[in-house]
Amino acid sequence: MTGSEPMSETAFLESGLRSWRIAMDRSGKFFTSRSAEELEKTIAPDRNRLIYLWGHLTAVNDRMIPLLGLGARFYPELDPVFIVTPDRSVANTFTAKDLAEKWNHLDQFLWQKFNALSPAEWLARHEEVSEEAFQAEPHRNRFNVLLNRTNHISFHVGQAILTR
Amino acid sequence: MTGSEPMSETAFLESGLRSWRIAMDRSGKFFTSRSAEELEKTIAPDRNRLIYLWGHLTAVNDRMIPLLGLGARFYPELDPVFIVTPDRSVANTFTAKDLAEKWNHLDQFLWQKFNALSPAEWLARHEEVSEEAFQAEPHRNRFNVLLNRTNHISFHVGQAILTR
Repeated sequence: MTGSEPMSETAFLESGLRSWRIAMDRSGKFFTSRSAEELEKTIAPDRNRLIYLWGHLTAVNDRMIPLLGLGARFYPELDPVFIVTPDRSVANTFTAKDLAEKWNHLDQFLWQKFNALSPAEWLARHEEVSEEAFQAEPHRNRFNVLLNRTNHISFHVGQAILTR
Repeated sequence: MTGSEPMSETAFLESGLRSWRIAMDRSGKFFTSRSAEELEKTIAPDRNRLIYLWGHLTAVNDRMIPLLGLGARFYPELDPVFIVTPDRSVANTFTAKDLAEKWNHLDQFLWQKFNALSPAEWLARHEEVSEEAFQAEPHRNRFNVLLNRTNHISFHVGQAILTR
């Protein structure tokens, strides 16, 4: 069986990447095809608006760049509006066009970076865990972040589609 | 590096299992701690009730047993109420207690089976894909089902928590 193991680890990794791709395609298609008016809709009475969810997911994707050791963020200015504060608590100066540009740029950037990482790099620690903590908790690796963030997208897409 | 590859494939698999575990714990804790009255709440006006989402996720978990080649289903009687038809279109004869018992039994059964499968078995085809189709699309394996179903749980949990 020598030589079969690297193929296996690639197959597991590819399932994770495929799952991310499905979540990104589904959410990207949904949000980028909404009108500015539709993006003002709330997912339920007194709950988040669509544009908040979209900005939130965009900011979380942007934060994956330093978290996964892939470089510096592009859009830290999203955090005060979409991460730190709840919806409608501060003025949102980002339009649907702004978010679409940021979303698409991040999607292309992350997807290219993701596909360039080796299986060993996916299993290395992410940047929010120290060397020492990683010794004790080796599951705190990049692949774990990928699966968690994929589920986070699915969580909010389940809410977003309630506006249809 | 001989010998490191099997550890790697195990690490990828463990991330997938961990992601499932987190989704199951979160959803199980949420649904089993709701009162019968709370389970009648809808996630948004004219949308699914909580009890429907819970029965739906329970039925989908039950369907994973034959799909993953782990044996026969326990509760096919859930499908007419929670899979085939939308909420409130047929009478629901399942109580919160019924669903909690089924949910917990399936959780324990699946978790034990999942942990007994080898990495190679996780990468083998699932039961809804033929040998021929699997040759062309080797990603249609058990691990892919695991990740998809985990995201499906997250999708509906995102909706369910809107009732709080």
